[in-house]
Amino acid sequence: MRIPFVVGAVLLAGELAAGSAALADEGMWTFDSFPSARVKELYGFAPDQAWLDRVRKASVRLDVGCSGSVVSKDGLVMTNHHCVTDCERDLSSLGHDYVQNGFLAAARKDEKICPGAGASILQAVTDVSARVKRAAAGPERQAEIASIEQEACGESREKLCEVVNLYRGGQYQLHIYDRYEDVRLVFAPEMQAAFFGGDPDNFNFPRFALDMALVRLYRDGKLVTFSDSLKLSPVGPKEGDLIFASGHPGTTERLLTNAQLEFQRDHFLPWRIEYLSQIRGGMIAESNKGEEEARQISEALDNVENSLKVFKGQRGALVEPSFFAVKTSEEKRLLDALMSRADLRGKYGDPFTDIARLVAAQKQTYLPYQMLEVRYGAGSVILSDARTLVRAATERPKPDGERLPEFTNGRLPAVEHAVEAEVPVHPVLEKLEIAFWLEKTREYLGADNPAVKALFGSRTSQQIANEIVTSSQVGDRAFRKRLWDNPEQVAQSNDPALGLVRKADAAARAARAKYESTVSLPTSVAAEKIAGLRFDVQGKDAYPDATFTLRLSYGVVKGWVDPQHGEVKPFTYASGLWDRATGAFPFNLGVKWVDGQNRIAPTTQFNFVSTNDIVGGSSGSPALDKDGRIIGLVFDGNIHSTGGAFGFDPALNRTVSVSSQMILEALRRIYGANSLADELLK
Amino acid sequence: MRIPFVVGAVLLAGELAAGSAALADEGMWTFDSFPSARVKELYGFAPDQAWLDRVRKASVRLDVGCSGSVVSKDGLVMTNHHCVTDCERDLSSLGHDYVQNGFLAAARKDEKICPGAGASILQAVTDVSARVKRAAAGPERQAEIASIEQEACGESREKLCEVVNLYRGGQYQLHIYDRYEDVRLVFAPEMQAAFFGGDPDNFNFPRFALDMALVRLYRDGKLVTFSDSLKLSPVGPKEGDLIFASGHPGTTERLLTNAQLEFQRDHFLPWRIEYLSQIRGGMIAESNKGEEEARQISEALDNVENSLKVFKGQRGALVEPSFFAVKTSEEKRLLDALMSRADLRGKYGDPFTDIARLVAAQKQTYLPYQMLEVRYGAGSVILSDARTLVRAATERPKPDGERLPEFTNGRLPAVEHAVEAEVPVHPVLEKLEIAFWLEKTREYLGADNPAVKALFGSRTSQQIANEIVTSSQVGDRAFRKRLWDNPEQVAQSNDPALGLVRKADAAARAARAKYESTVSLPTSVAAEKIAGLRFDVQGKDAYPDATFTLRLSYGVVKGWVDPQHGEVKPFTYASGLWDRATGAFPFNLGVKWVDGQNRIAPTTQFNFVSTNDIVGGSSGSPALDKDGRIIGLVFDGNIHSTGGAFGFDPALNRTVSVSSQMILEALRRIYGANSLADELLK
Repeated sequence: MRIPFVVGAVLLAGELAAGSAALADEGMWTFDSFPSARVKELYGFAPDQAWLDRVRKASVRLDVGCSGSVVSKDGLVMTNHHCVTDCERDLSSLGHDYVQNGFLAAARKDEKICPGAGASILQAVTDVSARVKRAAAGPERQAEIASIEQEACGESREKLCEVVNLYRGGQYQLHIYDRYEDVRLVFAPEMQAAFFGGDPDNFNFPRFALDMALVRLYRDGKLVTFSDSLKLSPVGPKEGDLIFASGHPGTTERLLTNAQLEFQRDHFLPWRIEYLSQIRGGMIAESNKGEEEARQISEALDNVENSLKVFKGQRGALVEPSFFAVKTSEEKRLLDALMSRADLRGKYGDPFTDIARLVAAQKQTYLPYQMLEVRYGAGSVILSDARTLVRAATERPKPDGERLPEFTNGRLPAVEHAVEAEVPVHPVLEKLEIAFWLEKTREYLGADNPAVKALFGSRTSQQIANEIVTSSQVGDRAFRKRLWDNPEQVAQSNDPALGLVRKADAAARAARAKYESTVSLPTSVAAEKIAGLRFDVQGKDAYPDATFTLRLSYGVVKGWVDPQHGEVKPFTYASGLWDRATGAFPFNLGVKWVDGQNRIAPTTQFNFVSTNDIVGGSSGSPALDKDGRIIGLVFDGNIHSTGGAFGFDPALNRTVSVSSQMILEALRRIYGANSLADELLK
Repeated sequence: MRIPFVVGAVLLAGELAAGSAALADEGMWTFDSFPSARVKELYGFAPDQAWLDRVRKASVRLDVGCSGSVVSKDGLVMTNHHCVTDCERDLSSLGHDYVQNGFLAAARKDEKICPGAGASILQAVTDVSARVKRAAAGPERQAEIASIEQEACGESREKLCEVVNLYRGGQYQLHIYDRYEDVRLVFAPEMQAAFFGGDPDNFNFPRFALDMALVRLYRDGKLVTFSDSLKLSPVGPKEGDLIFASGHPGTTERLLTNAQLEFQRDHFLPWRIEYLSQIRGGMIAESNKGEEEARQISEALDNVENSLKVFKGQRGALVEPSFFAVKTSEEKRLLDALMSRADLRGKYGDPFTDIARLVAAQKQTYLPYQMLEVRYGAGSVILSDARTLVRAATERPKPDGERLPEFTNGRLPAVEHAVEAEVPVHPVLEKLEIAFWLEKTREYLGADNPAVKALFGSRTSQQIANEIVTSSQVGDRAFRKRLWDNPEQVAQSNDPALGLVRKADAAARAARAKYESTVSLPTSVAAEKIAGLRFDVQGKDAYPDATFTLRLSYGVVKGWVDPQHGEVKPFTYASGLWDRATGAFPFNLGVKWVDGQNRIAPTTQFNFVSTNDIVGGSSGSPALDKDGRIIGLVFDGNIHSTGGAFGFDPALNRTVSVSSQMILEALRRIYGANSLADELLK
């Protein structure tokens, strides 16, 4: 479960409460508007401010699109295995496959820097709505946001400032984070333990996955001390226990209008599913060529398969007629209020009709925007870095306010950090992605599109991809650093990756500008009006859509009754792992677990489910008890939760966590990592 | 454009007339109810009975899922290149790649038998509705249909008898065909001429494809004389000319209810698109490994890409709100009649509600049925033949009436013919298909499904696929013949393909039985009621859905105004081919065409579009003028036609043909096939 790969709910009429006052355990709440009274009423306990502050200061956002928690005063951070596979792969080489075999630093000095990784911890939140909204939507507002961020953080690399749009324009907050760019891998189990059951078991339950990892935060090579770290409980939760999950859910779209949801259902999601299904097939075929190919491909394939399940779940939720009935009735309530009150009409106009018109424009412009801009290179690191270099050379000489937002002074350090990081290039994967991207761009935009003609010339996608993978130097960090430091050399370079970028960059910028001016910008204006209308009609007793900012959800340990498979119990135990193992991938075990069967008690809690409302990006969130002790590690949702970008169904949606009991037992008895287990308890 | 890969229409409200009285040039009409009066009124000409009989007797149905026409008294048949690629591939070997390089028999004795191919020509049609409908729907009716076929054709291999269901149960006809099982390849151009522009240009126009081929019908190695063959016109059509297309459109679903269309839109088509997109990606990756891999994969890949465009077009039509508005209003007319007339309610009950309930059951059962039965092996020839052998051994000893329908005495000769045909096995493709099928079956049915557990055991999909491709003898014709002749040996065989079939055949039969009893059968009962209601309310002035039986469509040569690209002219000319060629696949030309540029007049008509209503299976239909002369060869529809399984839009839907002028010019000036060109004119 990873950003932007969101999980959620198959929805039942009447139980859905998307975007309105939340029911039951629904909601990913900001720390400054947590519904303590409701939780107290439901469960007899609510966190006080000290509890909230302590948990906030130990809640980590990982750049890779995950969450984590500080679990020792020496900056040890617990997260999911699937949140460090990027790092493991970047550190691997022939003969050292950390993804497959796992990693354990023998001592602190052996902890390995994750190339390009970064982590942030939220320290302060300020409402800046008034200042932001004074600036007109568009470039002026972007400039104002950049100013607010710049004023608060300057050029500091120890802080990160972000202005966040909540409630789709209802509120703007300045979030100030402590920033860590020296993140080191400490421990990760082998893939077969972390991802036992592979794609077939992903988003399913019962489950037996040790999807955990440990990293440590450093600054300039030195340890950092955290006085408020969280502690693991050696005992996991019991059925019915109250659970809090503190993390950074990535994206939900529970406040979209019906017209926007129809676009998702009928156009955008079907397109994504088709696109990802095709590259999935290509990745599997490449993986089957041999071990080295499989190593290069596997993480990208896992990501694609993860996304596919999510998008299929989202589409599945949206084609349920009962879902749309709920959404329609919610929208009707707002519309009725608008139609019956002249004051609201005067204030907001008719933003629903505005959005329906904008969606019609979106249908015409989203594919060029997606293929030439958003999906540029389909994941190719070489093409992505090449585009960054080409654009940075053009953007950096401009005044700050006239640049593309990702190249403004406030963001430039992060871009430089990423472009200069040592990230290995996987040629098998690169070739596949580049050729795939060229083919799909031609397919969606047509062979007669001028950008397509420019990209292809008189060559095939394979020829272009081969040339880039064989001869481009963009994969070389020193080359990238030289061009970053000497941007005037970019335009003259005959590097084939830079050359390919130049062929269609004007078209890509034009597609982006058109999409932003005809869709994104006017849509955000209309959405801001709907947010205001919603506040006026329903009050502020609601949670904002997820935005990869810190949230707290609450719930209880509880199974569910599956429409197809009947009752599902909330816990799995160690014995079930060995029962399920067939010996064949993805149901095979590494030698440590085969040998370890008699060292782990069969009754050890393995995974459990709870009613917390989470979504992609929440991966790695600590599951906390009332006392703020970690009793589990969030790593997935069940299959019903995959549609939950659009709503939450308390009857079926479940969060899946690793029990703290198994985390400690596995560290001690399978991996011989006693000192780490001790550090987690101290 | 191939069966079951149907083409059709993106629909505009008000212009659609699906399933009701047809407007404009809509309709794939049976020869016994051709709307001559309407055509006469519209175009001042209508074919008389002699015209219809002559064209019928020269219209060929090819088993591969295509159409063709007898174009000489010596049994020469013109069809599309894409209808003989199966044959070409089966005849190819290393060093003789007829698909890529084309084929021309130097003399009659060099014409090559297409393995497993067959052709049929419709000779007689009898209405058997009364007799069929007297038997209760289900096994009893199946037995009655088998009896009718058996009585008319016996065991003859020179005839083929089929009882055809028209108007979704409105009418049953016995069709008696002359049958040819010795079909020989005479001429086919190289792939780059036939499929210039490849997948990007497929279903698009302007187009420059010589998608033609010639085969010859023999019986027992001897020529057959056809007195009523059709002749090619050396001059192609002019804009506005009336065109008839006589062929065998495969499947349309224009008479489905709204509930059924919603199932197609929301479940079935998205599933097909995802499935095909993934295998497409795998096939492309395999093709990129090398020339031999590409050779083995290419036809299957072309088929997948063709199907994908069609299914995407169909889904695209169904998500157009204007489309559903038309369908809804049509259904409402029938429903209103039903509700206002007690006699109709007494006769038909409420079949629309019945079907809505059946669709709900279909959602639960279609995936096991599809994966274990319909898509068994995902195209693997080995697994398909293995299943035929396993099932035949079980079915043949049973009384005729108790067998699976495909193993009844009337059908058995065709099954034997197919299973004993010499068809090469493509190991790269087989491995891909078998592993893909296993993986997708696990994905859709779940890792805990008993059939899935039995199929996988403690192995991976790759291990199973490798073993079958490496060690199964099912790819060996002699082995298949031995098992067919000695069915008692099948159960004892330890062949791994037969073994895999046995592991899940009971589950497959159960999934099929469940689907047939809970969906297919009761749906056909309800559909028959709707067909009766439609006849009662609207009269019989309608055409039945396509069923791969002989139909005649009419239209005129006419361009269209494309919503995105503006006016599209109806003709392309030879000069445009060389303009479009970039030299890179799929826009490259073979050496014959590169060299031939100065031998073909630039103004030679190449391809043209007309308003005929066709669909997959119509491929290879002759385009005829009023005099019954061939002025073109139907090979595709434009992109707007891809949704046309569900309706026809005369403003946008177009049929694409090769001009007879280019066919003759290319034969003479590019391929030096003067004697064939002469034979086409004689």
